[in-house]
Amino acid sequence: MNYDNKDEHYMEIALELASKGEGFVNPNPQVGALVVKEGNIVGRGYHKFYGGPHAEVYALKEAGDKAAGGQIYVTLEPCSHYGKTPPCVEAIVRAGIKKVVVALKDPNPLVSGRGIEFLRNKGIEVVTGVLEKEALNINEIFIKYISDKLPFVILKSAVTLDGKIATVTGQSKWITCEESRNFVHHIRNRVMAIAVGIGTILSDNPLLTTRLEKKCKSPIAVVLDSKLRIPLDCKIFDTLKYRKIIIACTEGYDEDKKYEIEKMGVDVIICPKDESGHVNLKILIEKLGNIGIDSLFIEGGGSLNFSALSSGIVDKVIYFIAPKIIGGLEAKTSVEGKGIEDLNKAVKLKNISYLKSGEDMMIQGYVEK
Amino acid sequence: MNYDNKDEHYMEIALELASKGEGFVNPNPQVGALVVKEGNIVGRGYHKFYGGPHAEVYALKEAGDKAAGGQIYVTLEPCSHYGKTPPCVEAIVRAGIKKVVVALKDPNPLVSGRGIEFLRNKGIEVVTGVLEKEALNINEIFIKYISDKLPFVILKSAVTLDGKIATVTGQSKWITCEESRNFVHHIRNRVMAIAVGIGTILSDNPLLTTRLEKKCKSPIAVVLDSKLRIPLDCKIFDTLKYRKIIIACTEGYDEDKKYEIEKMGVDVIICPKDESGHVNLKILIEKLGNIGIDSLFIEGGGSLNFSALSSGIVDKVIYFIAPKIIGGLEAKTSVEGKGIEDLNKAVKLKNISYLKSGEDMMIQGYVEK
Repeated sequence: MNYDNKDEHYMEIALELASKGEGFVNPNPQVGALVVKEGNIVGRGYHKFYGGPHAEVYALKEAGDKAAGGQIYVTLEPCSHYGKTPPCVEAIVRAGIKKVVVALKDPNPLVSGRGIEFLRNKGIEVVTGVLEKEALNINEIFIKYISDKLPFVILKSAVTLDGKIATVTGQSKWITCEESRNFVHHIRNRVMAIAVGIGTILSDNPLLTTRLEKKCKSPIAVVLDSKLRIPLDCKIFDTLKYRKIIIACTEGYDEDKKYEIEKMGVDVIICPKDESGHVNLKILIEKLGNIGIDSLFIEGGGSLNFSALSSGIVDKVIYFIAPKIIGGLEAKTSVEGKGIEDLNKAVKLKNISYLKSGEDMMIQGYVEK
Repeated sequence: MNYDNKDEHYMEIALELASKGEGFVNPNPQVGALVVKEGNIVGRGYHKFYGGPHAEVYALKEAGDKAAGGQIYVTLEPCSHYGKTPPCVEAIVRAGIKKVVVALKDPNPLVSGRGIEFLRNKGIEVVTGVLEKEALNINEIFIKYISDKLPFVILKSAVTLDGKIATVTGQSKWITCEESRNFVHHIRNRVMAIAVGIGTILSDNPLLTTRLEKKCKSPIAVVLDSKLRIPLDCKIFDTLKYRKIIIACTEGYDEDKKYEIEKMGVDVIICPKDESGHVNLKILIEKLGNIGIDSLFIEGGGSLNFSALSSGIVDKVIYFIAPKIIGGLEAKTSVEGKGIEDLNKAVKLKNISYLKSGEDMMIQGYVEK
């Protein structure tokens, strides 16, 4: 495809616009659009909330008459079908756009390429693949969910350089710096659900809410609690007024406790056991996918993290590593459980990126499947 | 100080020359020198081996008559005193050099600045501080030893992303990639001594030699073995023909075993116990410093690493982190022992650098004292 630096420049702006939808569009994709006429940006738009108008609509509206003869930059192939909103390709044609620059083709195999074809048939020049990798990145959740109907699973851990998540006495506030902790809240904002084990609830009694300076939402909390041991007075239940809570247990749970929990407005999902007797996570994420949850952020302890990684449900791993050492044979580490015996069978990461996060290091990568 | 990019360019070459002395000059500094005349490099030299001629001598010799009216670039202030060799400042004056560019002043407080003063008194222009940081780096061992008479202590660990140094069954070959392991051999080549705990000898039976494609030397092996448990047939003793071995034990050792070990040609050093009953490492490094050991590379397991870090002897920490996860509650981690209870008292690193090492990440930093 022929495109130049100018195209990349405008697409970068479109991607920035797309990122503004973070946390509010799931399970839709984050999309940004930019109308450019004779070197001037005349319209901007992004997909703001689930079910709301598409990015192109806002951008064309702002451009008004100036759109005619101009170009539109869109981070995702414009839609050609009637969904919750009318097809964007028609609006583009109507506006008199001469050239459409697309970062990423629609990953939905049922419609991929149709929007582009429609536009080309109308005599509009279409360029694709501009900053495609960046567009893939921003929509990794959407792409997994649209392809597999399973949530995109992100596992995060915050460790010392020597791999500990707490001191021998259990102190974990704070291993990492403020910037890293703030980054975690951005991830919470981005995903639809967050998961912790009952161990974390019992030891830390967390709220699991999103705390950011900008407008944000707290994800659905999923607590892995095979035997329904969760105390009815734990803090997380205070957040029921503004977010959903799901507790996943296994067969053999306490019927009375389940009744009490459900009475509070909490959803209880019953899952088969895995080989260690814990909630079978493969089944759980299928169930979560079926109820429309496109992403799950695991902020577990070593036991849940091992179950998640060894069951193969994890797509992306994010580690924050603080430049400090605390030692301790008894100090908790980020992944425990039974462990993998053979190094050749280790969970391997690919497409790894290393970023500074304040004084910490952030390492992220995707699990090789 | 006034210097330009050209000066930095030549100093970079001088630093590269200096690095060729790695492993062969301890406890002397690594020094490189370059003679430049009318924009041409006419002489090159570096300090090749302990007690041998200084870098300036080689560079001036190669330059011959061309040195007159030229400049010399030296990574360390030229010496002005008679040591094992005559003073370099006199050779510089004799050669007719007009300008001397120095990266680093001599860190030895007894002579620092004297060489520069001597040259200036002879009417030679002297510029200092060119790539000073790089010159400090290359001589961090020399600087510590000349200042404190204590070895510069480097602690290294090779871990999975989840902080393990072996799987639950003890498999550790190999956690990290070939490039990282090769880097470790460069460090072994650079230091005068390498230390491991008796645990490592018993479990891995290592040679602890340096294996590089270029000419290299194996460091003195120091085994921390409070009770002299070391088997007389372990592999490391096969290396006695070409390297020194020191075993550090504590009071209460077995006299007969000590006699047998010493009969093989191994040095046994008796140290007081630390609070855990292990070899007191603070005292040990004093003893090593007194016998001329300028650097100690700790490649220990979690127990030795914790003792070393908590006793405050460690100067530099190097972690190789492989992008894989193995988990395991029982899997060994890089720093174990009693552990630090209070996060505020964690061992903190400063001047951290993050480097790619093949597929691994290398994090290195200096311990805040």
